[in-house]
Amino acid sequence: MSESREGALNSRIERAMAGNRRALARLMTAVENDPTVARDVMRRVYRRTGRAHTVGVTGAPGSGKSTLVARLAAAYRAQGLTVGIVAVDPSSPYSGGALLGDRVRMSALAGDRDVFVRSMASRGSLGGLARGTRDTVRLLDAAGYQRVIIETVGAGQSEVDIVRAAHTTLVIQVPGMGDTIQTLKAGILEIADILVVNKADHPGADRAAAALEAMLDLGETTNRDAADDWRPPVLKTVASEGQGIEALVDALDRHMAYSCTLDSGRRERERARRELFEILRGDLLRQLMERVGEARIDAIIDRITAREMDPYAAADNLLSNAG
Amino acid sequence: MSESREGALNSRIERAMAGNRRALARLMTAVENDPTVARDVMRRVYRRTGRAHTVGVTGAPGSGKSTLVARLAAAYRAQGLTVGIVAVDPSSPYSGGALLGDRVRMSALAGDRDVFVRSMASRGSLGGLARGTRDTVRLLDAAGYQRVIIETVGAGQSEVDIVRAAHTTLVIQVPGMGDTIQTLKAGILEIADILVVNKADHPGADRAAAALEAMLDLGETTNRDAADDWRPPVLKTVASEGQGIEALVDALDRHMAYSCTLDSGRRERERARRELFEILRGDLLRQLMERVGEARIDAIIDRITAREMDPYAAADNLLSNAG
Repeated sequence: MSESREGALNSRIERAMAGNRRALARLMTAVENDPTVARDVMRRVYRRTGRAHTVGVTGAPGSGKSTLVARLAAAYRAQGLTVGIVAVDPSSPYSGGALLGDRVRMSALAGDRDVFVRSMASRGSLGGLARGTRDTVRLLDAAGYQRVIIETVGAGQSEVDIVRAAHTTLVIQVPGMGDTIQTLKAGILEIADILVVNKADHPGADRAAAALEAMLDLGETTNRDAADDWRPPVLKTVASEGQGIEALVDALDRHMAYSCTLDSGRRERERARRELFEILRGDLLRQLMERVGEARIDAIIDRITAREMDPYAAADNLLSNAG
Repeated sequence: MSESREGALNSRIERAMAGNRRALARLMTAVENDPTVARDVMRRVYRRTGRAHTVGVTGAPGSGKSTLVARLAAAYRAQGLTVGIVAVDPSSPYSGGALLGDRVRMSALAGDRDVFVRSMASRGSLGGLARGTRDTVRLLDAAGYQRVIIETVGAGQSEVDIVRAAHTTLVIQVPGMGDTIQTLKAGILEIADILVVNKADHPGADRAAAALEAMLDLGETTNRDAADDWRPPVLKTVASEGQGIEALVDALDRHMAYSCTLDSGRRERERARRELFEILRGDLLRQLMERVGEARIDAIIDRITAREMDPYAAADNLLSNAG
């Protein structure tokens, strides 16, 4: 990195950390778009991180996630806490930004300088999205935001990976037993620290909550980690009306206190390990590609598509002759 | 691999390829559970693959995927084609297998020896699931199943990766504009070769179909690959009644014919490249771990969690001293 570029970056980091929102936003864009810049920036801000309480919020489309997140942010603000929100929207070229209409629900918070909302607009690879999200959360943390809420769509593995990087994971359900079973199938219950039945004014809310409790009972006898004595509470909310938000904030605080004690070290190590391995996988592949060159990779891919060589044998070939 | 184990594996592969269903099922389990076995098996069967038409089916929970897949399988059977179905259910310890009730809808096909249904039950890592699914599809292909349908839940990146490995990707929508927008946001429209509005007897089906067409119009002027002149058809089905299935089979055949010509080479290379890189990433990390040892990794993770070292610097450290 040239000296002047390094100077510009340092100055931008300084301004971002000092509360300059525009500098922070630009830093996020740079970090999101360029893994090399991300490395430089993380090296400089990492020691400031680890202070925010991070909350991952996930649930199916239509479960009212964005509304709930906005309410939660408002509740934190009412306590005098600063709030960062990272909305993970794996956008398509079709949607661009024009369709991201539910961000307007954040408008009540829009004038508040102690709330910072960031949409992860870039699509890219799974690794890219998870990496970008994690680094964005870290920038908010380093910049002094005390609560960082990460909102993700759906129940795919990438979303699971993203919310697992948070201290506390909140899973939103809506009434309707079919949906509940689908969520259970998608394996998302096991990552939940707090379960929320939103739209609890709709029919079937009590049944949905009871079903979740029953599932937790089942899990306790069969699958709970013995070291983990946190039982996810099941809460009912009507986010559109602000109902149940106070109890939710309460549960989040209790989980934060819990995870700061017993559970914290283990989870923190797991998170660090996952991230380290992800970075290593990407770096190692890049190094290999540089060594063997694009032409050789192309030739190998020709052999795979011609069915002369299976993909595993192709990998062995590249690895054994890459020195 | 010992000679006797190799002999047993060869014999099982032979029986599986000759139509022994039990041998095929056991082979799938072995391949799914053990990447080393997967390599051995793929080396032996790979040259037999590439004959099946693979169809990825994705859509939100409750969109009627399983019913549609069962209808599609029945329609193929009526044409005399053999059918493999791979249902990707990232199951949780909570659900096990007991809740996977919608598999019972397959019961009409259960006695048919020319239909092979396989649920991907193991959870594991994203890479593991994508790898296992791909190898399972390959085994069905090698065993002579002429159509292989891969059914996945949701719109996460992992599901996207799984369906992208298929020749033809079918995205299911249900009436309701909110859902449509959510799907667009999730970026799934861009991977669709065929769009299906299922539950088309529900209100709003025509509006949903029109909205999808409008999105495609938008995409054509801004985002379409110039080399790619396939416009995804938008079809309406009522899978529970079997309505619209004939037209769907027709569209699938047309897309197969299309992708066998113009588009095939490019996509096939992309698929091979993605898979090769995924294998390499895993192999490279394993090699590194063996070189540096668990103790050193643990020590580095301690430094990360103590904020003495950021994860990128930790990766650099491991890579520069791993020789």
